[in-house]
Amino acid sequence: MYRLISKNHADKILKMLTDELKEVEKILNEKIDWKPLPEKKESKVYAIDGSQGKSRLSGTIIYTVASYAFGNGKNARFVYTNAMTYNHGISDQIIRLQMETLENMLGSIVGNNEYTILMDGTLTGSLTRPPVYPESVRGITTVMNALGEKCLKKLIDDFINRLNCHYEELEKNLEEKREIYDSVILADDVVEEYSEFYNAMEGYSYRDAPIPSNLKKLKVSLETLMESAEKGETIEDVIYHYLSEYGEEKTLTIEDAKNTIHVVLSYLEYLYSLERLLQRELIYIAKSFYSRKITSKLGINTVDVPFLDAYLLKIYGEEIPGYYVIYDPERDYEKKNISHCLPRVLRNYFPTVQEFIEKGVPSAYIRTMKGGVIYLLQSNNIINDELIGKLLWHENSGYIRPLQKAHEGVKIEQQTFKIELDALMNYLKRKNKELRVFIKYGRSPLE
Amino acid sequence: MYRLISKNHADKILKMLTDELKEVEKILNEKIDWKPLPEKKESKVYAIDGSQGKSRLSGTIIYTVASYAFGNGKNARFVYTNAMTYNHGISDQIIRLQMETLENMLGSIVGNNEYTILMDGTLTGSLTRPPVYPESVRGITTVMNALGEKCLKKLIDDFINRLNCHYEELEKNLEEKREIYDSVILADDVVEEYSEFYNAMEGYSYRDAPIPSNLKKLKVSLETLMESAEKGETIEDVIYHYLSEYGEEKTLTIEDAKNTIHVVLSYLEYLYSLERLLQRELIYIAKSFYSRKITSKLGINTVDVPFLDAYLLKIYGEEIPGYYVIYDPERDYEKKNISHCLPRVLRNYFPTVQEFIEKGVPSAYIRTMKGGVIYLLQSNNIINDELIGKLLWHENSGYIRPLQKAHEGVKIEQQTFKIELDALMNYLKRKNKELRVFIKYGRSPLE
Repeated sequence: MYRLISKNHADKILKMLTDELKEVEKILNEKIDWKPLPEKKESKVYAIDGSQGKSRLSGTIIYTVASYAFGNGKNARFVYTNAMTYNHGISDQIIRLQMETLENMLGSIVGNNEYTILMDGTLTGSLTRPPVYPESVRGITTVMNALGEKCLKKLIDDFINRLNCHYEELEKNLEEKREIYDSVILADDVVEEYSEFYNAMEGYSYRDAPIPSNLKKLKVSLETLMESAEKGETIEDVIYHYLSEYGEEKTLTIEDAKNTIHVVLSYLEYLYSLERLLQRELIYIAKSFYSRKITSKLGINTVDVPFLDAYLLKIYGEEIPGYYVIYDPERDYEKKNISHCLPRVLRNYFPTVQEFIEKGVPSAYIRTMKGGVIYLLQSNNIINDELIGKLLWHENSGYIRPLQKAHEGVKIEQQTFKIELDALMNYLKRKNKELRVFIKYGRSPLE
Repeated sequence: MYRLISKNHADKILKMLTDELKEVEKILNEKIDWKPLPEKKESKVYAIDGSQGKSRLSGTIIYTVASYAFGNGKNARFVYTNAMTYNHGISDQIIRLQMETLENMLGSIVGNNEYTILMDGTLTGSLTRPPVYPESVRGITTVMNALGEKCLKKLIDDFINRLNCHYEELEKNLEEKREIYDSVILADDVVEEYSEFYNAMEGYSYRDAPIPSNLKKLKVSLETLMESAEKGETIEDVIYHYLSEYGEEKTLTIEDAKNTIHVVLSYLEYLYSLERLLQRELIYIAKSFYSRKITSKLGINTVDVPFLDAYLLKIYGEEIPGYYVIYDPERDYEKKNISHCLPRVLRNYFPTVQEFIEKGVPSAYIRTMKGGVIYLLQSNNIINDELIGKLLWHENSGYIRPLQKAHEGVKIEQQTFKIELDALMNYLKRKNKELRVFIKYGRSPLE
């Protein structure tokens, strides 16, 4: 057919999609409660968006994260620039976590309670899968196992007290200045003050491994394993070998321990920002291409949007606007909670986060104009005509204008970032020319 | 200072880098055995590179992966296009894994044993961290726990037999056609023939959790936990709760089970391609910005390259070319093996992969011209003047030309991909206009 896509490739894809369409057609007789859009209703909002710029230099990564609020009151902005020694796999996620922290932070502080806060993305994602999530939870578990629960709680209590003061100050400063550039992220500034914790963790070792839920099954395997156990191995050794067969052993160096505490503090700061944000009325809007909330219930492996498209076309003959409440915790019998996603020790510290993890997030699909894209909408309030009406007040030809404006206002132009980075590097070299070994650009062997 | 980087930010970064420089200076009196470059020595090579193009449509991801060999013989190329239902987090990694499989596959087949194969990246990375690595290992473990080791081995034996035939055929076809576009990746084509396995796995449930290495420590915690155990809880329940506190419970649906088998087959196909590739003489070249092979041994937290730069400048007064053997398994007493990285059950199937995991990978830093970038070089042979001389035969002003040419030859131009994708979508709609629900483009609420 062409250079990249052969006739065979095309026919294989044709077959795959045709099979999927057949699946969808099987369930088109299901009833979906697609509601017409309500009238617009006057409302005040702030839309929040974030962005990041980063540059990987020789051994160092220099980055900027920012958040911006655009709405019916005065704009506001947080900007934070920092450098870190590159840590493969984690650095990019820490940067993303800090960006989201700045977004939540700004949304929780800006305006007053008359304003609804519009966010890009999903609340479910923020609750269950923050960046560096597995590392954060492993970090919490590691601190707990290495130092004990009491010690972990001491760390958390202390850091949350600091965060309370930090937010008070930020709120005051933002009121005056509208733009804050310094000391926005607390974890980076204070990690060294928690040295007693990471010093005590040095040398602790552990493994990661998947455990079968059915421990009886594990025991059967163990009996088999015992037969093949090497001389002198106790049942404990065998359990350990079994559990650890596929995990990597890790012994914490002082740097690992410090990184673990740093990740834990960053995660706590993130959760704190989310807890504060949840005190506001929130509307999250996301592209919904890949969620399977309806189709998974109907037992097919396709995602929701093509199914909804096919369904609305069949019932109404066109791609009409409207909305469909997927989940309402007040109405739906079966709670959509997410089990075990917040470590037990943290639950009392972040009760609203925990509440939405337990009861699930109100969710709906919405199309605001004929033929437009179907978005996923989430809120911490019930999704009904009232809430949708308030959102539509800010809609124009299928777009939610304040979200667009926030996006435009926060975008870190690669050009600006590069210019300021060059200036920074000149500044550093002027201060100490030997620093240039750290701030060389790299090139790939293929360039 | 500027819009993004304030004076405070700049000074914080200045302080961080100055502290790091002090660390580096502490160890500049260490002796590094930096060798001069040898004479060039005539050699034949093939350089291999890969690329990918992808497009996320409504619920579907359509992608192309390709590999290309450029060298002293005729060029050769593999191209593979496919579609999959988007699976958050996994899809992008599967695509990357397939791209790397095509690279290894081509490197193992192209030319004959007179040719050295040049690869972009590191052999260590290929051995220890293939894409979807944790999911693959979890997949292997899950199949083993759900169906037993015997059954897992049956799956592996059968699939490796098929791969043997598959490679024989590819080799024959490549000899004739030089470019192969169809049925390059086997796992995708045959996964449905392993339905007896995934059908049997449906309903199996497990959890992921980190386990302390010191089980005695675990037992102490358990005793404490037992005191707080709820009525009727057995020691087994408590162990289970303890281990699973922070893991997410997962029960496999038939689709999960099929995905698990698919990931396992893809992983096996990748390992097979690497095992075959390791039968050739290989040289890997990578940007080395973030490795810490020297500095971690010297006990500082900086990466190697700035240290080497500072060191060479101090000793020779300029950034001279040369190379430094970081690790030679024949010479170095302390083996740099990577523990437990290949699941035990796989080790006999991929003995050369296992061999290099056990003994470590010969590695060196190299700078091919004055003031040039320092690269990380790895091989499955000893790194000495002979090997470096053969590589330098293909060097020109600091660049390894065949790698550049392979990179240029394989690059999937976004433009070409888009044009062929549009053609594919027209083809699909012509065949069945209802398929359009799957192949809509998306837009974000912020666009």
